[in-house]
Amino acid sequence: MVSSEFIFKFGLAREADTKILLLVIDGVGGLPHPDTRLTELEVASVPNLDEVAEEGICGLMDPIARGIAPGSGVAHLALFGYDSVKHPVGRGAVAALGIGLDPAPEDLTVRMNFATERDGVIVDRRAGRLPDELNDKLCEFLRKNLRLEGVSFTLKRVKDYRAVVVFKGEGLSDQLTDADPGRTGFPPPSVEAKSPEAERSARIANEFLCQVRELLKTSEARKIVGDPERANTVLMRGFAHPSYLPSFREAYKLRAGAIATYPDYLGVARMVGMDILDTGDTVADEVATLKRFWDQYDFFFLHIKKTDSAGEDGDFLKKVHLIEEVDAFLPQLLSLNPDVFVVTGDHSTPALFKAHSWHPVPIALRSRWCRRDAVSAFSESKCAKGSLGRFPATELMALILAHAERLARFGA
Amino acid sequence: MVSSEFIFKFGLAREADTKILLLVIDGVGGLPHPDTRLTELEVASVPNLDEVAEEGICGLMDPIARGIAPGSGVAHLALFGYDSVKHPVGRGAVAALGIGLDPAPEDLTVRMNFATERDGVIVDRRAGRLPDELNDKLCEFLRKNLRLEGVSFTLKRVKDYRAVVVFKGEGLSDQLTDADPGRTGFPPPSVEAKSPEAERSARIANEFLCQVRELLKTSEARKIVGDPERANTVLMRGFAHPSYLPSFREAYKLRAGAIATYPDYLGVARMVGMDILDTGDTVADEVATLKRFWDQYDFFFLHIKKTDSAGEDGDFLKKVHLIEEVDAFLPQLLSLNPDVFVVTGDHSTPALFKAHSWHPVPIALRSRWCRRDAVSAFSESKCAKGSLGRFPATELMALILAHAERLARFGA
Repeated sequence: MVSSEFIFKFGLAREADTKILLLVIDGVGGLPHPDTRLTELEVASVPNLDEVAEEGICGLMDPIARGIAPGSGVAHLALFGYDSVKHPVGRGAVAALGIGLDPAPEDLTVRMNFATERDGVIVDRRAGRLPDELNDKLCEFLRKNLRLEGVSFTLKRVKDYRAVVVFKGEGLSDQLTDADPGRTGFPPPSVEAKSPEAERSARIANEFLCQVRELLKTSEARKIVGDPERANTVLMRGFAHPSYLPSFREAYKLRAGAIATYPDYLGVARMVGMDILDTGDTVADEVATLKRFWDQYDFFFLHIKKTDSAGEDGDFLKKVHLIEEVDAFLPQLLSLNPDVFVVTGDHSTPALFKAHSWHPVPIALRSRWCRRDAVSAFSESKCAKGSLGRFPATELMALILAHAERLARFGA
Repeated sequence: MVSSEFIFKFGLAREADTKILLLVIDGVGGLPHPDTRLTELEVASVPNLDEVAEEGICGLMDPIARGIAPGSGVAHLALFGYDSVKHPVGRGAVAALGIGLDPAPEDLTVRMNFATERDGVIVDRRAGRLPDELNDKLCEFLRKNLRLEGVSFTLKRVKDYRAVVVFKGEGLSDQLTDADPGRTGFPPPSVEAKSPEAERSARIANEFLCQVRELLKTSEARKIVGDPERANTVLMRGFAHPSYLPSFREAYKLRAGAIATYPDYLGVARMVGMDILDTGDTVADEVATLKRFWDQYDFFFLHIKKTDSAGEDGDFLKKVHLIEEVDAFLPQLLSLNPDVFVVTGDHSTPALFKAHSWHPVPIALRSRWCRRDAVSAFSESKCAKGSLGRFPATELMALILAHAERLARFGA
């Protein structure tokens, strides 16, 4: 049984007058560059992160299990202590919650990505990271022209090339396959029912998909985009009914606030009952938000997005610089004197790999109750030698709460 | 599945002509002192423990799971290979067995601690570590004056401020909350039923509790204690029916003997079918007992208590000296030539933390079949670099039995 399950099952969490800051640098783990044999973190100059590693305890964390590369949703749920097998959540539900929608349990949610096809195959799964304004305009155009029978729907931009659809109607099933080949060079697929009960839902989804793809190829849509082919199709992933998990308040007795610039992370945070703290687009905005709300919460989840995007884009040096930018903000974070400060990633996104990967992520935890180890730098290779060893992310919350003196003793 | 479950499920244990000595230094793990940055173990001069570490294999063990601070009962059961979720045991049952009572499976056992209250709140949960003589006298006084209807009861001193109550009657339920706030500054609570079936049991327990608390405030009780408020109330923890686990004899094919100076550890040992080997109060007494019984058993559990008490009292230097005292006895233990010698703790009790904590405990295992690692000293930081890595205590028994050539091969 993982340690967070002990907390849930035996009600070990208790209130205390301590503050916790969890800094998640998305996709922070990397792979060594062939020229230098150093990872992004090892190339970056991060004196402040190194000091945290030196004063704290370090280790390597598997987001889910060895070899498993996770999506952002399950990776964050694991960080928050929720086993993603026991508590399955869908991408669509995360996206809908993340932009402030409140889908009902019977609604069907799904994430929709604008993509570009040429000669019948996908050539860009992100439509050149479509900007928000174009996404908004395309969503509006689609909403106006789509005609569906038997269900109503909400279609809204999430961010960049991402949107979300919430279908409202009777007896909708989420037992549907993704309409997404997951890589370029393949045709945009349709949706299939995984069970006979889902066949009607599959028909509805395919009718929606069909109309959207046709509408995006019209001259009106081409005029909106200003390009003959960019964003001329969509992909759909993660059909799901929304789930609401045991909340941080109930399970951990924590008043928790989430600070993130990207809606999906806020969606996961809302799922576990965190409050969303209003912030801007930059790390500086996020830090300002943290300071503004510092007195009002016990636990802060502070999410840095751009490191992951740089990794996905294969931009090694940009990722290095973004890590250095985060490091420069650390003194401001630490000056708030959190009783427990944790820095880690939700998963690795090595610039060389250009995607989320399975490689474990470095973690450092600083608190007065740490039994310091010999690690003196925050990197994959140094943290591998830390006293925390290698462990699954679902163990993290128990470690955090223990160091925050927020766990009762277990058992006789 | 942890490795001890393989032994249980597939009957892997087999007899052999080998001897095993498990030395448990209670609460041995510590935290670095701010002045020296060294833990109790690192300050202590322990040449003999260091030699065991050098000749053996080392690691760090989590008593239950990362972040979870255990009670002594579950921590020892984990050392003995029993998963405390699958095999829950109550504090009351451990205490009753530990002082030689043999409660029937339907009896209701509970631990009772003498405590001190002032102005309606608990100010000392241990009544200044009440001495045995006063505890005996108070128990006798209470037994003489308590009047309960519908049940009979046994009330006996365990040790220091601790006593145990065994209720005998029809249909008693252990679904009762603790009457213990777990910390000072709160009023002594009453017992609550966790389910409707337990309501009668809750009334009986509360009637008992009420009478005890009133009796302890009488002038007669005050005269016994010789103090106007010390031990003027009680707390109750761990209502439980006794559980008897798969025994060492059945599960591991071991004739096992337990040597401990403190009743609770003997209670856990009896639960797993160890024989209790009569001994005195000192480590020297325990070592003499070990020698006396060496030929009669395959497995010895030798428990050192005082290190834990020093940790709970926050006495760093005392804990250091007690560890050194144990070290001085090691040559006598090793001269018995155990085929497998293990030294570890059941959990950490850092003097700085003054309580059981979640920090992992160092472990060293010496046997002719060890694949020696590079660790050459017995301490938290050195063992963190050992080849055993970091692992849960429930894996220990399989390691021990394997090195004692007492496990059959698993599987085809």
